[in-house]
Amino acid sequence: MTTSIPYKIYLAENEMPKHWYNIKAVMKELPDPMLHPGTLKPCTIEDLQPVFCDELIKQELNTKDLLIEIPEGIQNFYKMYRPSPLVRAYCLEKLLDTPAEIYYKFEGTNTSGSHKLNSAAAQVYYAKEQGITSLTTETGAGQWGTALAMACAYYDIPLTVFMVKVSSEQKPYRKAVIETYGGKVIPSPSETTEVGKKILAENPGTGGSLGCAISEAIELMAKTPNCRYVLGSVLDHVLLHQTIIGLESKIACEKYGIEPDIIIGCTGGGSNFGGLVGPFMGEKIQGKNNIHFIGVEPASCPSLTRGKYAYDFGDTGKSTPLMKMYTLGSGFIPSPNHAGGLRYHGMSSIVSKLYHDGYFEARSVEQTRVFEAASIFARSEGILPAPESSHALKVAMDEALKCKETGEKKTILFGLSGTGYFDMTAYMNYNSGTMTDYVPTDEDLEKGFATLPNIPE
Amino acid sequence: MTTSIPYKIYLAENEMPKHWYNIKAVMKELPDPMLHPGTLKPCTIEDLQPVFCDELIKQELNTKDLLIEIPEGIQNFYKMYRPSPLVRAYCLEKLLDTPAEIYYKFEGTNTSGSHKLNSAAAQVYYAKEQGITSLTTETGAGQWGTALAMACAYYDIPLTVFMVKVSSEQKPYRKAVIETYGGKVIPSPSETTEVGKKILAENPGTGGSLGCAISEAIELMAKTPNCRYVLGSVLDHVLLHQTIIGLESKIACEKYGIEPDIIIGCTGGGSNFGGLVGPFMGEKIQGKNNIHFIGVEPASCPSLTRGKYAYDFGDTGKSTPLMKMYTLGSGFIPSPNHAGGLRYHGMSSIVSKLYHDGYFEARSVEQTRVFEAASIFARSEGILPAPESSHALKVAMDEALKCKETGEKKTILFGLSGTGYFDMTAYMNYNSGTMTDYVPTDEDLEKGFATLPNIPE
Repeated sequence: MTTSIPYKIYLAENEMPKHWYNIKAVMKELPDPMLHPGTLKPCTIEDLQPVFCDELIKQELNTKDLLIEIPEGIQNFYKMYRPSPLVRAYCLEKLLDTPAEIYYKFEGTNTSGSHKLNSAAAQVYYAKEQGITSLTTETGAGQWGTALAMACAYYDIPLTVFMVKVSSEQKPYRKAVIETYGGKVIPSPSETTEVGKKILAENPGTGGSLGCAISEAIELMAKTPNCRYVLGSVLDHVLLHQTIIGLESKIACEKYGIEPDIIIGCTGGGSNFGGLVGPFMGEKIQGKNNIHFIGVEPASCPSLTRGKYAYDFGDTGKSTPLMKMYTLGSGFIPSPNHAGGLRYHGMSSIVSKLYHDGYFEARSVEQTRVFEAASIFARSEGILPAPESSHALKVAMDEALKCKETGEKKTILFGLSGTGYFDMTAYMNYNSGTMTDYVPTDEDLEKGFATLPNIPE
Repeated sequence: MTTSIPYKIYLAENEMPKHWYNIKAVMKELPDPMLHPGTLKPCTIEDLQPVFCDELIKQELNTKDLLIEIPEGIQNFYKMYRPSPLVRAYCLEKLLDTPAEIYYKFEGTNTSGSHKLNSAAAQVYYAKEQGITSLTTETGAGQWGTALAMACAYYDIPLTVFMVKVSSEQKPYRKAVIETYGGKVIPSPSETTEVGKKILAENPGTGGSLGCAISEAIELMAKTPNCRYVLGSVLDHVLLHQTIIGLESKIACEKYGIEPDIIIGCTGGGSNFGGLVGPFMGEKIQGKNNIHFIGVEPASCPSLTRGKYAYDFGDTGKSTPLMKMYTLGSGFIPSPNHAGGLRYHGMSSIVSKLYHDGYFEARSVEQTRVFEAASIFARSEGILPAPESSHALKVAMDEALKCKETGEKKTILFGLSGTGYFDMTAYMNYNSGTMTDYVPTDEDLEKGFATLPNIPE
């Protein structure tokens, strides 16, 4: 079988998934529900309608249907940049001198540079269908903002992006790309919102955070008629859209008889990881495979490995519904020296529940090790990886080196969720030896935990 | 037939070209030969050996063999990033409301961001085979330097890149990518070479030029034992390697019954254009098709449309062999406000001869029009194009709009040779309305022509 596997596997159009994969339909226990922050009761469709598009809310609350149809309008958009290739990392294997087979699913071939476009396409499509006339969002490293600007340009809907201030400074060109696609970019925290003003008053020098940018985006949305807010990660419907990654991977693996022993993804808000592993993990839950899944997060923002499993707000301004998740507290802001993305304080409820129930392992890695792995990968496989994706890459290399020690011929699949073209400032710091690591002390974490809400059991 | 054409055509591994296409073998008249600058006699293998690798010289001088085998070591490298997709621009067609069918061959999916990797892979492979221990080169916009650094990392050969100073300042991140791949970058003109010192003494404020960077790279090569110089465009062997673009396109077109009426490429040194159109033009020469070819150059560096067809040096320092080409004179330096690449004073001998003999049309376009087209393309097709490639794109759009007027359903194929991720400074200037155009006056051109050598007929 092996000899007939192409170097890069692209599915044909007729092999492409026509449905997303809703893992909640097979989970033995469901994640605890999203709570209304006022009543502390599970959110209803009506609670969420002022914020999100109707169809997305239905997807958010759907726990029954395993397969959810991808509308033709979204399939057409996907055709612009999908399928993404599943690539055998022959050169990396050779360099590491490992008996392991390493594959990566590469989501960076589109201009947004990452997997984020998968959900942007879907969310803007549904907004357009519903007659929404403008959108707001936040972006951290900028992939989501770029992806959404691309989708908004395609479907012709105006967009305002609150971009984490430190990112907008570290990545001026990313901001320029969003603007080229017609998006309006506001560095966050900003003076344009009440919550922004409040945060600036309390922390004048702050570089911002995703939680804070979310608060600003929601406030602007609430003030704007016929506007909705869209979120690039964390929520169940975002994970749903991202399962296109795992579904394509699975179809490609099945077509060529590739059986992964280990699947690795990086974890920020959880959508890339959830999207990649979802369809495989669903089958693990059903007893159909015994794959070892690993989620990799930065040591500087360790929600899974050092966070608490608790109800928390999605944003710093404490305006979102409460979600049960692994969290560092919505007041946690990672050190500005952290350049590798994955800066969110919390973790998708689905991913958190799967972790809580023992379905996967989580590891944290320090950023200089991540950039070291990224540089090795760039030189051997050609692709310049995003720092985020390089967290997964780093652990894939670790696992391949373990195979070298033990002689095991494992099949390792990891998600290469994006490219690093807009992260050259960080690469320059790494190349010049000035990059430092940051691991929060227990005291640092306690400050974040102190911002957790008190929710009666 | 049409209904079965995929949105994006990727060739399967067994469909990939195994040979490059040497158009000289079918040209009715050959380009005038390269001359030794001392003797003014046609260059021999021995003349070129101190500068170039042996196998590349053989390819340079080969006028007999139409098909030249691609060694397996290069085919393996190509597998890392090829095939490139041939894409139907449905969204752009819809936006332009044209009856024309528009296809583009997209060479920007690799990290170098352009077609340049096609020749870099080949040239470094042959250097390694010959036991060469280091390489020097020049780079303008940075694509070639990045591509070569990637190939040098893969084959493990040290590389020094002289980067046109104005580009290294406009594109610091491009420089950082080259360094991430292990290349040493020196902004040119520099104090590290005699020719650089001389140019700086004469023009202290100069932003540099490709011709000048070539002189510096050749000087360093000559001073370094077992070192060779590699060039990213202009030369016959570079065009030969780039025919992989046209060959893949042709195979894809034939497989799906696509018959281009017009093929358009941008022209700087000519390798992208020559590589894309070569295999199609060879058949035109043989009377097998009647395709209309268009080469598009910047109005600020108009070698084909306003240059002289004459023997000239390839570099400012007048150290290379003389080539018969359309040229603005090796002393011509485009205005620093020109951000769109394609800054070379001359044009490939093969492309020049084909132009001289009437096999294609040349057009020049101003850069604000180019960035306007680039922005429209980005928003409709998703891809952020390189300014260079956007010259071709601009004319493809013009031709599609002509079809709208006439009602003709022409099939237009253009080369999208790269991405613009590292050109965001230029995009920012365009977005903010501060970009200006520059068209040299006849007087400006006369200054360049004054640097042409006197060669007896």
